Amino acid sequence: MTDLSPIRPNVIRIAHAVLTVKSLEASREFYVDLLGMHVLHEEAGALYLRGVEDREWTLKLVQESSARVRHLAYRVGGEADLDALVALAEQEGLPYRWEEELDRPRLLRLQDPFGIPVAFYHQSVKHPWMLQEYHLHRGPGLQRVDHVNVMVPDVERTMRWYMDTLGFRLSEYTVDEQERYWAAWIQRRGGVHDLALTNGPGPRLHHWAYWMPDITAIIRTCDILAGARQPERIERGPGRHGVSNAFFLYIRDPDGHRIELYTSDYITVDPDFEPIRWLRDDPRRQTLWGAKTPRSWFEEASDLEAFDGGVVTAEAGDLTGIPVHVI
Amino acid sequence: MTDLSPIRPNVIRIAHAVLTVKSLEASREFYVDLLGMHVLHEEAGALYLRGVEDREWTLKLVQESSARVRHLAYRVGGEADLDALVALAEQEGLPYRWEEELDRPRLLRLQDPFGIPVAFYHQSVKHPWMLQEYHLHRGPGLQRVDHVNVMVPDVERTMRWYMDTLGFRLSEYTVDEQERYWAAWIQRRGGVHDLALTNGPGPRLHHWAYWMPDITAIIRTCDILAGARQPERIERGPGRHGVSNAFFLYIRDPDGHRIELYTSDYITVDPDFEPIRWLRDDPRRQTLWGAKTPRSWFEEASDLEAFDGGVVTAEAGDLTGIPVHVI
Amino acid sequence: MTDLSPIRPNVIRIAHAVLTVKSLEASREFYVDLLGMHVLHEEAGALYLRGVEDREWTLKLVQESSARVRHLAYRVGGEADLDALVALAEQEGLPYRWEEELDRPRLLRLQDPFGIPVAFYHQSVKHPWMLQEYHLHRGPGLQRVDHVNVMVPDVERTMRWYMDTLGFRLSEYTVDEQERYWAAWIQRRGGVHDLALTNGPGPRLHHWAYWMPDITAIIRTCDILAGARQPERIERGPGRHGVSNAFFLYIRDPDGHRIELYTSDYITVDPDFEPIRWLRDDPRRQTLWGAKTPRSWFEEASDLEAFDGGVVTAEAGDLTGIPVHVI
Amino acid sequence: MTDLSPIRPNVIRIAHAVLTVKSLEASREFYVDLLGMHVLHEEAGALYLRGVEDREWTLKLVQESSARVRHLAYRVGGEADLDALVALAEQEGLPYRWEEELDRPRLLRLQDPFGIPVAFYHQSVKHPWMLQEYHLHRGPGLQRVDHVNVMVPDVERTMRWYMDTLGFRLSEYTVDEQERYWAAWIQRRGGVHDLALTNGPGPRLHHWAYWMPDITAIIRTCDILAGARQPERIERGPGRHGVSNAFFLYIRDPDGHRIELYTSDYITVDPDFEPIRWLRDDPRRQTLWGAKTPRSWFEEASDLEAFDGGVVTAEAGDLTGIPVHVI
Repeated sequence: MTDLSPIRPNVIRIAHAVLTVKSLEASREFYVDLLGMHVLHEEAGALYLRGVEDREWTLKLVQESSARVRHLAYRVGGEADLDALVALAEQEGLPYRWEEELDRPRLLRLQDPFGIPVAFYHQSVKHPWMLQEYHLHRGPGLQRVDHVNVMVPDVERTMRWYMDTLGFRLSEYTVDEQERYWAAWIQRRGGVHDLALTNGPGPRLHHWAYWMPDITAIIRTCDILAGARQPERIERGPGRHGVSNAFFLYIRDPDGHRIELYTSDYITVDPDFEPIRWLRDDPRRQTLWGAKTPRSWFEEASDLEAFDGGVVTAEAGDLTGIPVHVI
Repeated sequence: MTDLSPIRPNVIRIAHAVLTVKSLEASREFYVDLLGMHVLHEEAGALYLRGVEDREWTLKLVQESSARVRHLAYRVGGEADLDALVALAEQEGLPYRWEEELDRPRLLRLQDPFGIPVAFYHQSVKHPWMLQEYHLHRGPGLQRVDHVNVMVPDVERTMRWYMDTLGFRLSEYTVDEQERYWAAWIQRRGGVHDLALTNGPGPRLHHWAYWMPDITAIIRTCDILAGARQPERIERGPGRHGVSNAFFLYIRDPDGHRIELYTSDYITVDPDFEPIRWLRDDPRRQTLWGAKTPRSWFEEASDLEAFDGGVVTAEAGDLTGIPVHVI
Repeated sequence: MTDLSPIRPNVIRIAHAVLTVKSLEASREFYVDLLGMHVLHEEAGALYLRGVEDREWTLKLVQESSARVRHLAYRVGGEADLDALVALAEQEGLPYRWEEELDRPRLLRLQDPFGIPVAFYHQSVKHPWMLQEYHLHRGPGLQRVDHVNVMVPDVERTMRWYMDTLGFRLSEYTVDEQERYWAAWIQRRGGVHDLALTNGPGPRLHHWAYWMPDITAIIRTCDILAGARQPERIERGPGRHGVSNAFFLYIRDPDGHRIELYTSDYITVDPDFEPIRWLRDDPRRQTLWGAKTPRSWFEEASDLEAFDGGVVTAEAGDLTGIPVHVI
Repeated sequence: MTDLSPIRPNVIRIAHAVLTVKSLEASREFYVDLLGMHVLHEEAGALYLRGVEDREWTLKLVQESSARVRHLAYRVGGEADLDALVALAEQEGLPYRWEEELDRPRLLRLQDPFGIPVAFYHQSVKHPWMLQEYHLHRGPGLQRVDHVNVMVPDVERTMRWYMDTLGFRLSEYTVDEQERYWAAWIQRRGGVHDLALTNGPGPRLHHWAYWMPDITAIIRTCDILAGARQPERIERGPGRHGVSNAFFLYIRDPDGHRIELYTSDYITVDPDFEPIRWLRDDPRRQTLWGAKTPRSWFEEASDLEAFDGGVVTAEAGDLTGIPVHVI
């Protein structure tokens, strides 16, 4: 009774990001000292971080001369799913290679058709979580990886590929006045999204998001950043999204990588969940409360590493302009 | 790459309960006026209720001369899954028949091998949800159906059948000092549980649970019941479960049906999620804070309607006794 | 051992506001249906509202052809304090008269030296409060009157008069780059302020404020206004003030009267509490998180009724300009 | 217009406690590592702690061979108030002497007529607070000293003395079925209480209380103690008091001293605030939700140091028995 064809790899969920940063010490202060992420491993030039519910590392920071995104990784259901992904890559002519990450001996590094550096793995070392070690929680208490948002020049084409090839399902989407897809939220694990796609020059990483235990924890993040005299790290929010209904905060790390803290959305496990449609210029879409969004949020994003080194060239698409509710 | 055999029906999630009550007016005061559930439909002798995220009714209350459980229903992925369930019933000699419920024209009523009155459906009328109609939320704001807990005399046998036949997966379990299963939490939708099984004379309904937006909403429930001079409706909690990590409250409706308000557990979408094992007498198991549980919580439960009328006879199993942390 | 001279009237706290509105029905929807204020009395053309902790009405809305402030009232310790106030008025040549309000048979209406329509009363009918009637709370649950903020052209002179004559004490203040007072928070009851003074053309009412039970209740206010499709009522926030440390939200009623919802400041009962000094252009002053303030917040305010009818003419003072962190 | 006679000393508020403990290291783990109190000073054998809003130390822990209460201190309005207290002591024949504490060079140590070791001071070194240093907050974030509760054999006589002599005002009180005072909450600073008196063998310290920022912070305290595998430190709650309406938690430190974490009560600044009367056996009195109270809460308390050394002998009063809602 399954809707999965034998060839389709079973992607479980978004799993980790590897970001390069220019100062690991500045990053450590931000992610560990202020946000309270837990260091699962540490080695020369790299930190492996996780939230309190994560049983694996979910964010690896690597010291480099420039701040980029090395790859965005999804966990798959088994080793056979990796084989299916290799078959897919061969069939579609996508560059791929096997890599290794700490705790993850078999990581399939792939370039999707749009230049996004993705990776897939199944085998992974699970560590005891910190969820009930409340006495060791620090700061606002980031809980678990929630989703990734990528800015792309052609939202619909990218969305279709992830849906048709990898079985992602659509939760919500935004169209412009000509009914062209401007943003899409697609998911594998029964939440609102594992992957969001936003229109703009790309591909670039728009943000990487963690689930928070509650609204209070998100407010505490603002207070902590203010206490540390770093309010400029707060880019947008806190507020309530129209899309996803989540309570959110966008912050920027010392290298400008955008992190979203996110909570209280809804579940989408029904296979016939009817996607929610929004108009791009609906003031309720971005923030249910009608708050405007800073222009930087639409314009700035992190560069992606190309498969063979260097940076993926960001390209503009056919849709230009940003929503009207901007400051 | 799927793990579902063709014969196995695809159960999506726990979906609704039909409870009989002796006074619909008393129930309305409890569920609607105090708990703030939304009336989706109303007819002579019956109320159809839902939480703000529910797009369907999730609790039907029917006025009868005695308070029982008519059935507990799961939603399946498609009509073919209902056919597979019929084949399963035929194969296992389980009683079944087609019934109809409001908004659900094709409901397969089945008796599981343990006497639990279950039902399955796919087709259902979806209604606009109330999630973002915040001005219409009332009381503590029950959000969505979360799970059901059934008291059974043989936890392991019941658990095995749901796992082997319907593809449920184990999240957490409790064993006694002889490693016999005393309780189990099993799931289909990637949360901690759709169905929990607790040892005790049964089968009987232990509780029906709703997801709450946050801890504050659960505290508000206590305050509201106290304000209404009905503190006796509060049976246990609020507190933090060891099992599931959820913040919880158990309340009893005017007929004694037990309702759990529940929030902030974790996700279990990884297919190799390693089930968490607890010892029955670990004081952290029931309430992480070590609070004791009232004896009624272990002893009282709602009777189930039998397939051919009357009540399913509750039987005691081999395991006797309850955890030591009781008051 | 008291620091009060015999002549000085003992002002206890800010107590009520009487506002005129152009549509009582629109006001009722805003204050009662959405904000959940409780109607203590109702008569043709007037509503008497209160929060759940208030034992008296704290906001009277009167239907008139224009939206203004009739008066702002303080409660005094006894009838003799009213006599002292009359003596003070005579001594300073301030207009005054005795008026009557519902539940308050002896209200001394006075014009302060700056044209602000103030009133004082002691005798008042106390009603059972709603604090523990949680089942009757509605919406976000406004709790009690907290303070009033008046925009005046000469903050220091106004502040000095209230401190020297009525015994207000300074909690926090803002100076411009030439150390001239730009804003001041003064108090009688041991909180951060009963009365705040903000520089600008005036006197005009800047806002009227209610204490909220917690941050979650303030967030719920935003959600409720968004649910009712009235996000434009949200003018500023939610956020954390630098001044007062309070978590706040500014909303505008249908007539443009500005209401602040406010929680979690601190106590100032020590008589030697050292006032906190802020620079006007310190980005942390207005919002600890560095968020900018909409220009309307600095420019718009409610007109005040003059002692003999008509409107108090707003005058600009010597200090011009507003803080730089504005949008 | 003041109600204070010239002779009456002006007590501002409850200010600090000095407790002796048997292991300063165990205390440090509890108060600093788990509760997140801030160490303002430290010396051989003593820790001086405060909450984030406190500008002074509010809890001094001294290592001794037995766990007792050295004294409970109030802050007064000025040095002249100390003179008035000396005059009072002379007049009533109360033992007194001048002592010195860190930051408090002139501390008047007095024995009240009931044997409670109290102290008064005005001069004190104020330190920059931690309120807005959110990045340095730890654990649940205790905010400020709130009140003290003393178990005494004659509640009415003790209450009368504090009210008649020191100007305390009554907020709430409990009577038994013969209208005898069983407990009283009295205040100086406009909150529900600076001092509570509970019937029982005494005088002994029942608990010392801190104000918490919100309910979530109190829940987090439970989680933190559970995480540290010290759930036995939780004695009662969390819950909502009927008296005071506060959300509360009672915990026991490693020496058994009882600490209350407390939030969201109400203000009592009106001089004619009408005290709230409760019946001792009203189930809503202790916990609005009807929860029962553990017997230890009524029986166990900390010994007080006598003026000339040793321990104040606890005596039983005429009222025996405890409320019926006990477990």
